[in-house]
Amino acid sequence: MTSIDDVAKLAGVSTATVSRVINNKGKYSEKTKLKVLKAVEELNYKPSTQARHLAKFRKGFNICVLYSERIKKHLISEKNEFIQKSFYSIVLKGIADGAQENKVKMDTLTFNEFIKKNTKYDGILILGSDKIPNNILECNIPIVFIDNYIVGKKTNSIVSNGFDGTYYTIDKMIKRGYKKIFHIHGSLMFYGFRRRFEGYELAMKNNNLFPITYEIKEEEESINYVMSMIMPKKPEIIFASNDSIAIMILKYLKNNNIKVPDEVQLIGFDDVIDATLVNPPLSTIKVFKYEMGNVALERLIELINGKNLHPYVTSLFTEFIERKTTKGV
Amino acid sequence: MTSIDDVAKLAGVSTATVSRVINNKGKYSEKTKLKVLKAVEELNYKPSTQARHLAKFRKGFNICVLYSERIKKHLISEKNEFIQKSFYSIVLKGIADGAQENKVKMDTLTFNEFIKKNTKYDGILILGSDKIPNNILECNIPIVFIDNYIVGKKTNSIVSNGFDGTYYTIDKMIKRGYKKIFHIHGSLMFYGFRRRFEGYELAMKNNNLFPITYEIKEEEESINYVMSMIMPKKPEIIFASNDSIAIMILKYLKNNNIKVPDEVQLIGFDDVIDATLVNPPLSTIKVFKYEMGNVALERLIELINGKNLHPYVTSLFTEFIERKTTKGV
Repeated sequence: MTSIDDVAKLAGVSTATVSRVINNKGKYSEKTKLKVLKAVEELNYKPSTQARHLAKFRKGFNICVLYSERIKKHLISEKNEFIQKSFYSIVLKGIADGAQENKVKMDTLTFNEFIKKNTKYDGILILGSDKIPNNILECNIPIVFIDNYIVGKKTNSIVSNGFDGTYYTIDKMIKRGYKKIFHIHGSLMFYGFRRRFEGYELAMKNNNLFPITYEIKEEEESINYVMSMIMPKKPEIIFASNDSIAIMILKYLKNNNIKVPDEVQLIGFDDVIDATLVNPPLSTIKVFKYEMGNVALERLIELINGKNLHPYVTSLFTEFIERKTTKGV
Repeated sequence: MTSIDDVAKLAGVSTATVSRVINNKGKYSEKTKLKVLKAVEELNYKPSTQARHLAKFRKGFNICVLYSERIKKHLISEKNEFIQKSFYSIVLKGIADGAQENKVKMDTLTFNEFIKKNTKYDGILILGSDKIPNNILECNIPIVFIDNYIVGKKTNSIVSNGFDGTYYTIDKMIKRGYKKIFHIHGSLMFYGFRRRFEGYELAMKNNNLFPITYEIKEEEESINYVMSMIMPKKPEIIFASNDSIAIMILKYLKNNNIKVPDEVQLIGFDDVIDATLVNPPLSTIKVFKYEMGNVALERLIELINGKNLHPYVTSLFTEFIERKTTKGV
């Protein structure tokens, strides 16, 4: 597929200029216009959606939020009711509020439902990092990825800044005087887990401490196995790459009569609703889920309007939320 | 300084809700309103700029672009003429075009000029990653950082995605059959250099190749010293962490009668004007400087308008530009 970058490159102008010419908006010389239009023709570039919808600037779009069957289970209960406080339902609320404010019509569909339905949409938001069918990735309309980032693909993505949040939090713990901080993480094939890993690692190294990390599968057996290796080493703090793993660790510690936070402290990542419901409530690094949805919707509207077309990743800062699994100051 | 995050946390609502209440815009319940206003009062939060300027939505702002004395030398010649095609002058053009389009008044000042001048601005853009005086960082108006990102500080920043661009380019070279790809880099204390380093490293590791890296100081002596260690190892490709280093390497290679790209290939990063002027012209990874300025200006306007206040990093994708220091396909 020809991109606006290809056109800009061939015409020897910036993508912003191509966008101005195509959308007949802002200033450019006649000479520039000719160069751009020549490149558009030569490359058979179709800025279809952008041009078509410029007339309806900021209003009246039809968009669709897509997700996998797995994520659907976090959004809709078996009784077919909307689940209010899951990670993804909060993101969805951020999208829906933005859609309402901007008078955008919004559908929510699974990948398969979308492929079967065959409705025309002006833009797509894709929720989460499950495998996305190729015929969705290849459809020629603006796409924004939420909580996902495919390295090397130049996708417009909204993610949480796990690197920064983790670095900040681990550094804070080290400044409190702790040294034996271990990291238990899921597969580093996932971008999100990898960035948290890197934030942990850099904070340790910058403080002249040796990073100690263990990969687990998100299942009880794997947690038990890894914890049996870790606990004899007497960690002061365990940092888990998400709340769901942290909560499984908490369960293990309870089953083995190990007191939290007295004997070992525990930190999660995400700030899901369960983090507040477990006992003791989990200290964690909060992802701004609502804002993530909101910003993604705005970005999609920009792209549909042909504005700021050069692709970029938006990464929202996270925040350390101290509850009862760490010892405070 | 109290942030909107602090208010949101104390009120137990999202920052978007705080923003809606403060700006008296969109939907919220009376109960929510009271909670937010109570938190605002308790924390003595002053959303001064945002509230004050909401009336002039998108128009009539006064902003200022700030830079160090070092960067000034890349913008203004000794004859006091504007330098057209430097890295930062292209960024500045992107800002200025956006400012014109949005009817924003814009000054450009060095840090010291700004501190002396004492004019009131609605927002500030800071160019580049030189040390910024604390009294600028602490002034209570929206700031957007361009080509800089202070880890752990939650600053609104626009950067280039060096990680992704480097990963993609090195992976491309490996797919062409090259294995001995070395990386010569500046200090990894700089975020930009570190991300390029990490992109290089991951691309090598994912292809089961061993990363070989050398740090240099940006001066001839250091380049000569490092190159004298590298060349006996017969690298196929040298990737430098910016064009300026790559061009110094190119000079070394010429002085030592080593043919580029026949005996060793060379890749830079940035795509500065000199990359096209050296002989042979340098293959490099292009930073979208104009777009960087443009997006930064838009982000600053959002912040001044009290929109999407939760801080985030925007990282623009880069692009491999193949010229004559690599062998093509």
